[in-house]
Amino acid sequence: MPYISTKTNVEISKEKEIAMKERFGRAIELIPGKSENWLMCAFDGGQSMYFRGDGSNNIAFIEVKIFGKSTKEAYQALTKKITEIISEELLVSTDKIYVKYEEVSIWGWDGSNF
Amino acid sequence: MPYISTKTNVEISKEKEIAMKERFGRAIELIPGKSENWLMCAFDGGQSMYFRGDGSNNIAFIEVKIFGKSTKEAYQALTKKITEIISEELLVSTDKIYVKYEEVSIWGWDGSNF
Amino acid sequence: MPYISTKTNVEISKEKEIAMKERFGRAIELIPGKSENWLMCAFDGGQSMYFRGDGSNNIAFIEVKIFGKSTKEAYQALTKKITEIISEELLVSTDKIYVKYEEVSIWGWDGSNF
Repeated sequence: MPYISTKTNVEISKEKEIAMKERFGRAIELIPGKSENWLMCAFDGGQSMYFRGDGSNNIAFIEVKIFGKSTKEAYQALTKKITEIISEELLVSTDKIYVKYEEVSIWGWDGSNF
Repeated sequence: MPYISTKTNVEISKEKEIAMKERFGRAIELIPGKSENWLMCAFDGGQSMYFRGDGSNNIAFIEVKIFGKSTKEAYQALTKKITEIISEELLVSTDKIYVKYEEVSIWGWDGSNF
Repeated sequence: MPYISTKTNVEISKEKEIAMKERFGRAIELIPGKSENWLMCAFDGGQSMYFRGDGSNNIAFIEVKIFGKSTKEAYQALTKKITEIISEELLVSTDKIYVKYEEVSIWGWDGSNF
């Protein structure tokens, strides 16, 4: 039950979107027990965003929401990989990418909570 | 102070939107102490989303944010009801609907925190 | 590492957007240790939103995500200021503005978690 939201001021082409969702599907395995089989992704391109007061550069804010908890090491590995994917696919400088996590304890699917 | 965000790849007509906000207004009462009187809803239709690597089916990601805490039973009842609403109004298969909760401890309204 | 998201049913002009990001850049200093130097902002105007079952008035939902924790007093001061900014710039009545906080413990930047 992971969810990855990509919010960026860069316009995302369908081709890039597909490349990212495929790479996220592999990257999520860095969190033990998680796989593309339960991964939902959302992409919001062309958003109005600012970083350090500046909106003229490419910027991205990635939110990773997972059911349960994981380890510092797993999150570190995932941040490194997601940053790499966003940087390569959307040409966002790595120092303009935030990857933020939320460990979720109440999560429903198919009408029931896990 | 609940907030329900509906994010989906389905286009949402104004008619469907109104039906959902009305049904959410009644559903939120499944959480003791909550009512439509404090409910804010947001609808994002036509989004770019993928589930299990696939973007060709109808998908929905619902986030419920509430001030304070509630019980497992209340959240279970709400997940069941929200899933029913989304499934019926947007024709999303129940096994492609996530309902995720956030219990919030700092929440402001009208210039002050509760 | 703060992030402020502004979601509203009001259309946001570029001029208003710039005014808000500048004012948010100063407001964030109400949280000790935070400054515009690490602030990311996102603006979503013209959204489909309802409050108390009604979508005919101006409404805003502000999410403030910060790395680490702060004090009740700091959050209260920031809610007051953000509410003032949104009310003045977007003409949203203060009693139709929610400001919600998330204290985040896992947050990455430039490929590494803090």
